[in-house]
Amino acid sequence: MRTELECLPCFFRQISRTLAYAGVNGDRGRVITRRAGSIIESVSFDQAPARVSTLLHRLIREESGVDPYRKVKETYNRIALEKLPDVRRMAYSTDRLAGSVRAAIAGNVIDFGIYDNVDLDRALRDSFELPLADTAFDEFSDAVHKARRVLYLCDNAGEIVFDRVLIETLRDRGKEVTAVVKGVPVINDATLEDARSAGLHGSASAVIDNGNDGIGTLLELCSEAFLQEYRTADLIISKGQANYETLVQERDARTFFLFLVKCPVVAKGLRRKNGDIVLMANR
Amino acid sequence: MRTELECLPCFFRQISRTLAYAGVNGDRGRVITRRAGSIIESVSFDQAPARVSTLLHRLIREESGVDPYRKVKETYNRIALEKLPDVRRMAYSTDRLAGSVRAAIAGNVIDFGIYDNVDLDRALRDSFELPLADTAFDEFSDAVHKARRVLYLCDNAGEIVFDRVLIETLRDRGKEVTAVVKGVPVINDATLEDARSAGLHGSASAVIDNGNDGIGTLLELCSEAFLQEYRTADLIISKGQANYETLVQERDARTFFLFLVKCPVVAKGLRRKNGDIVLMANR
Repeated sequence: MRTELECLPCFFRQISRTLAYAGVNGDRGRVITRRAGSIIESVSFDQAPARVSTLLHRLIREESGVDPYRKVKETYNRIALEKLPDVRRMAYSTDRLAGSVRAAIAGNVIDFGIYDNVDLDRALRDSFELPLADTAFDEFSDAVHKARRVLYLCDNAGEIVFDRVLIETLRDRGKEVTAVVKGVPVINDATLEDARSAGLHGSASAVIDNGNDGIGTLLELCSEAFLQEYRTADLIISKGQANYETLVQERDARTFFLFLVKCPVVAKGLRRKNGDIVLMANR
Repeated sequence: MRTELECLPCFFRQISRTLAYAGVNGDRGRVITRRAGSIIESVSFDQAPARVSTLLHRLIREESGVDPYRKVKETYNRIALEKLPDVRRMAYSTDRLAGSVRAAIAGNVIDFGIYDNVDLDRALRDSFELPLADTAFDEFSDAVHKARRVLYLCDNAGEIVFDRVLIETLRDRGKEVTAVVKGVPVINDATLEDARSAGLHGSASAVIDNGNDGIGTLLELCSEAFLQEYRTADLIISKGQANYETLVQERDARTFFLFLVKCPVVAKGLRRKNGDIVLMANR
């Protein structure tokens, strides 16, 4: 996926929001914003937006010296853990695999890269009510049936609590599930520390980090340990829009994307609407 | 009102949206966006955001050679004219002055500087249901009672159709009402041409333009003919957030602002919420 002109306002919204979370304002904020603006001017638009925003968030972390989203990550892990029993019940109430997919997609709303506010209850309602493409689900179900080793690419803190529902469903079907989180804090993406406080280690067969701060999955930055798992997995479950942006060009049929459509650029590309739930094979 | 860091994403959203309306994209769009970015970097943040965005919209009009919002202005004049009989009925159904103020504020939602989409029916519902500050309305009612000559600073095309309801209410009370529109097309702000197709000339005592393309009212750019009216009016009704941004520092007690709160920066400054309806004296 390439970057579009419409991505620019979103980049600046991310900069502005992240500076606010970092407690940086006034002249210092303007200096950092100017540097971020220079980055946006200099990059190639042939790359995915997530690659550009990786540079922006890296800049703000370096310049501010803080992890701006540390607190909000803790908060949403806690909120999601409180909801976990209810979400499990919702997921198990009909077809368990489909329900667990819907739970995992609902959690994808906890994204402070894109949203200013998160309405988790509404996301749950939507995710359990909106249509999920039948053919995609049948393919996914078939891929799950055939797979032994599953690589689960996590997205955000908080969201990973709901990912546990799908991961547990896969484990109960005898799959070996390795969950992957970020190697360095970036936006509110989950790291190993967040995974621990979300109880992910109790659900997945193993939890590893990918060794870097890339938004989405920037394969060239990933650790050899991650790449070893990536190469050998039978099924790759990829959560979130950024993983879609950065992995779609791989056309790797083992990969299924699960995410909420969060921006008009992605919506247009997929011929979907903002807020739609997506389960799709990467073909 | 000064510009805040949070205004930057909004500037870039305006640039991106306006380029789309102008039919400019690709490399040409990037060049214009880069120039707009340089403008944002070079301006003083001590001035109102509307002053900065005036420069951005001027740049895009000059570089693209078109009036990007021409069509959308025609469309919304037409839509608002279709709704005018209903809106008049709503306004007249209780206290006519209060109802007409609410109708005029509802029309303020037709703003393509800020919104991607406009939900006029929802704006009407909200504007007739949300609280209007009692003391402000009493002061306004009193000022109307005392005034002979009213200067009415219009904002957007489409919106001016609903302004007719308030203007007619003032005329029926014997006031002389001069409506003011922009001298040059900027965003979807009303010009003389829009005023004519909206029927504003049939409602106001006179319709004049302010001689310039400033977003809001930039007094130093206004024509002598406008300033003459401005200096001598008994009551100034100022529509829209940009007029608030650019006139609030005048502290001119003859002025009442009528607008929808459309952004978090203005909301924070006024201790109001986004979407609130505002009627306030400029003191």
